[in-house]
Amino acid sequence: MADNSSSDGVPSDSLEAAKNASNKEKLTDQVMQNPQVLAALQERLENVSHTPSSYIETLPKAVKRRINALKQLQVKCAHIEAKFYEEVHDLERKYAALYQPLFDKRREFITGDVEPTDAESEWHSENEEEDKLAGDVKNKVVIAEKEAATAEEPNPKGIPEFWFTIFRNVDMLSELVQEYDEPILKHLQDIKVKFSDPGQPMSFVLEFHFEPNDYFTNSVLTKTYKMKSEPDKADPFSFEGPEIVDCDGCTIDWKKGKNVTVKTIKKKQKHKGRGTVRTITKQVPNDSFFNFFSPLKASGDGESLDEDSEFTLASDFEIGHFFRERIVPRAVLYFTGEAIEDDDNFEEGEEGEEEDLEGDEEGEEDEDAEINPKVSDLGDTQQGVLRCWTFHR
Amino acid sequence: MADNSSSDGVPSDSLEAAKNASNKEKLTDQVMQNPQVLAALQERLENVSHTPSSYIETLPKAVKRRINALKQLQVKCAHIEAKFYEEVHDLERKYAALYQPLFDKRREFITGDVEPTDAESEWHSENEEEDKLAGDVKNKVVIAEKEAATAEEPNPKGIPEFWFTIFRNVDMLSELVQEYDEPILKHLQDIKVKFSDPGQPMSFVLEFHFEPNDYFTNSVLTKTYKMKSEPDKADPFSFEGPEIVDCDGCTIDWKKGKNVTVKTIKKKQKHKGRGTVRTITKQVPNDSFFNFFSPLKASGDGESLDEDSEFTLASDFEIGHFFRERIVPRAVLYFTGEAIEDDDNFEEGEEGEEEDLEGDEEGEEDEDAEINPKVSDLGDTQQGVLRCWTFHR
Repeated sequence: MADNSSSDGVPSDSLEAAKNASNKEKLTDQVMQNPQVLAALQERLENVSHTPSSYIETLPKAVKRRINALKQLQVKCAHIEAKFYEEVHDLERKYAALYQPLFDKRREFITGDVEPTDAESEWHSENEEEDKLAGDVKNKVVIAEKEAATAEEPNPKGIPEFWFTIFRNVDMLSELVQEYDEPILKHLQDIKVKFSDPGQPMSFVLEFHFEPNDYFTNSVLTKTYKMKSEPDKADPFSFEGPEIVDCDGCTIDWKKGKNVTVKTIKKKQKHKGRGTVRTITKQVPNDSFFNFFSPLKASGDGESLDEDSEFTLASDFEIGHFFRERIVPRAVLYFTGEAIEDDDNFEEGEEGEEEDLEGDEEGEEDEDAEINPKVSDLGDTQQGVLRCWTFHR
Repeated sequence: MADNSSSDGVPSDSLEAAKNASNKEKLTDQVMQNPQVLAALQERLENVSHTPSSYIETLPKAVKRRINALKQLQVKCAHIEAKFYEEVHDLERKYAALYQPLFDKRREFITGDVEPTDAESEWHSENEEEDKLAGDVKNKVVIAEKEAATAEEPNPKGIPEFWFTIFRNVDMLSELVQEYDEPILKHLQDIKVKFSDPGQPMSFVLEFHFEPNDYFTNSVLTKTYKMKSEPDKADPFSFEGPEIVDCDGCTIDWKKGKNVTVKTIKKKQKHKGRGTVRTITKQVPNDSFFNFFSPLKASGDGESLDEDSEFTLASDFEIGHFFRERIVPRAVLYFTGEAIEDDDNFEEGEEGEEEDLEGDEEGEEDEDAEINPKVSDLGDTQQGVLRCWTFHR
């Protein structure tokens, strides 16, 4: 209705138009005297001045001065927060030592160096009840099959292809693995996370332990991730805890002709003067998971990366973080698929969709829904509980 | 192509159909002799057996036994993780004490009890450079306006409506605030987070401090959130750290006729025998932010909540968590809107879309993209860094 008060778009070269304009003005006058319309208009104007930054602009100088004082305090908070995250990192280091004996045992069971005792391998499936309900007939068939199989069943060493199977189950990894990477990854026997020593710059190393194989002589391939836990001077308010800022790979000592990260192509070259043609071979980069160990370097020399490189690097950081935060601590669940199925329950709830539409009607943008969440956007809860800490996916 | 080998759907009462079936079989034979088709079929079959749970099912008993041993170890890890999060909570408690002097100062500046010194209120906007580029003309106008305004500018006490403005800026809160809540919320002077004492069950209390007002006699309204940090016995692998599991409000001592959480409605009642009609008044619940202090109780008596109640409770937990994790520690940024704008930069990158489509072609489901992320789904990075810890939104 506020548009009626505007006389824009009225052509001045027409009597008819002038009449219309005059009528319009009359209408506008009437409309403007309607208290409901006035209230609606006022609300609209208020809403405009309610956008945070424009609202701040309208405040008296003395108040703006106090807001600046609050911002100074906020920067101090960010620095305290940085110290907090450093202490959390110390805790992670302390707990890494507590997990290690369990991870060592895991490695021994996987490689077959140690066989678990009966007590160690007892397990009551949480799905046992469900399985029972699924029907006795089916169960009997399965049991019969199992019994038949047992007699002739092989007993391989440990859990064959344990880590390789995880690579196959996790999309983020499987999309990096090429067919020719597979036989190499089958020799992967353990992945370890090592944190930097106290007092050292914050970092962690992923160690990929391989059994002796035909592809390279290294027994361990490493990838180091460097972190930063301090507010940016130019933008202290964006600080949210430690960030991965750079990474470093290692040299793989490939055995002759086994390097899957390069391929040899043949190229014809013509001699300028004589016009003769010769064929040369040239090595060019080849897609492979093992390129993970020759990452791009984050710009440290002042030159900034192009968009593609930045995306590649960001993806690499995500993968490193995923190894550290999910795969290494919960490997068996990624092997069985339970971690993947489990997380499935945490999808956005469908209940929110209806309310989302209401939000659209109010002219709000969907894009900031995640940032400035409305109750209706929330769907990440399960069985009436809310998780307080989450790893970054 | 695998569908061609199936003879389902062939009507048996028709010669024509039989002929078709025969042709189909012939075609199938031809198709099945094509090595490319066979390879594709085999790949398909392999993919089926590659789904994690069906793959596990095919493993020899001895291997399954070792996997169970790994699961036992994994449960032990979950219990160690629970201890880790308890220590993180201790750290939060320790740091709450370090933040408090800054938050006290913030409160004093907001209420106007203390005026910041010149040094305390110095602030160089990170946008100063941008402002300069935005054009001198505009700047001059703004400066002239400011100077004109300064002369006649009022100097209100502190930062008026500081917390109420945050309620208005944050969608999650503003959607709870009714028009009649607004004058009450203008009396809100501070929000504090208090953690439970060491050794006590994990919890936190949100304290809403009000100046004396015409609405209720309480000076503080409280909301307590109870947390749990131990793996569920029935589902230990779902443990991901502390969860909010219940909450509790407080009684608001409303002054007479000021309770906005109820409304009085008139209802006509007809006397059964005499047929006379009388009008009675009845109090019914009314939408209000202040219902935040009379939350639903999570089922503790064995009865489970219905879906609506569960959603209401989950939303309440999200709000409590948001107060604790974002609004209280960064109030000024929600007042100015910087926290909201800042987070805007962390939207999903558009670069991922193209690759997402590729994923679809492979017949993968979009829904599990977040759970089992592919590199192409990643977009939550900025300027080549990756945040390692995030609060739960």
